[in-house]
Amino acid sequence: MKSLILFGHGARDSRWREPFDRLASLWKVQHPDVRVELAFLEMMQPSLAEAITSLVNSGATDIVVVPVFFGQGGHLRNDFPVLLESCQREFPTVHLSATPAVGEDAAVLQAIVDFATKAL
Amino acid sequence: MKSLILFGHGARDSRWREPFDRLASLWKVQHPDVRVELAFLEMMQPSLAEAITSLVNSGATDIVVVPVFFGQGGHLRNDFPVLLESCQREFPTVHLSATPAVGEDAAVLQAIVDFATKAL
Repeated sequence: MKSLILFGHGARDSRWREPFDRLASLWKVQHPDVRVELAFLEMMQPSLAEAITSLVNSGATDIVVVPVFFGQGGHLRNDFPVLLESCQREFPTVHLSATPAVGEDAAVLQAIVDFATKAL
Repeated sequence: MKSLILFGHGARDSRWREPFDRLASLWKVQHPDVRVELAFLEMMQPSLAEAITSLVNSGATDIVVVPVFFGQGGHLRNDFPVLLESCQREFPTVHLSATPAVGEDAAVLQAIVDFATKAL
């Protein structure tokens, strides 16, 4: 069973996660048959391993992790692959994969340009 | 003259800014008559004040700052308004305004959901 993890940086201010909660809600409405969990690199719960555990416990066998980051800096290029590998060792029967950061996607960038256009 | 600043967090890894450069390029193609500058809160140049200086020197009288952040945590709720006020005092003849973070926009969130949908 395929499942999704939306993976964000995390922040001290709990209100920072509000768009992530909205993303997960949007996903649930549009894909009620594909479970989604949020996960955070630091400063917020759950961790990636905790989110994977939760999905595996509900039957996930194939988990795609989408990094909800604009840029691919040190966190995504260095920390994230190590974290993903460590999770793969912890859950050897699950197929774990990851997409590029959402900021690499042309349609996401265009939506930001459209937002700025409306603001002018 | 109206101008735009796309304002990001900044990161140590210079490759982190690539999507921001692509955003600015997209903007220039689609709005060749509205100048755009990038600016960063920390760890990258130019600062917000430097970007405003550059736009003012080329005739900007009205600058809209778009925070290219997902969440509105401490940086946007606390640091950013102080920074914007300080820039407004430094440039009293320019009209400075700011939008909410792009992560507050429903179309940006939908583009992220669509990206995740394609990945599954």
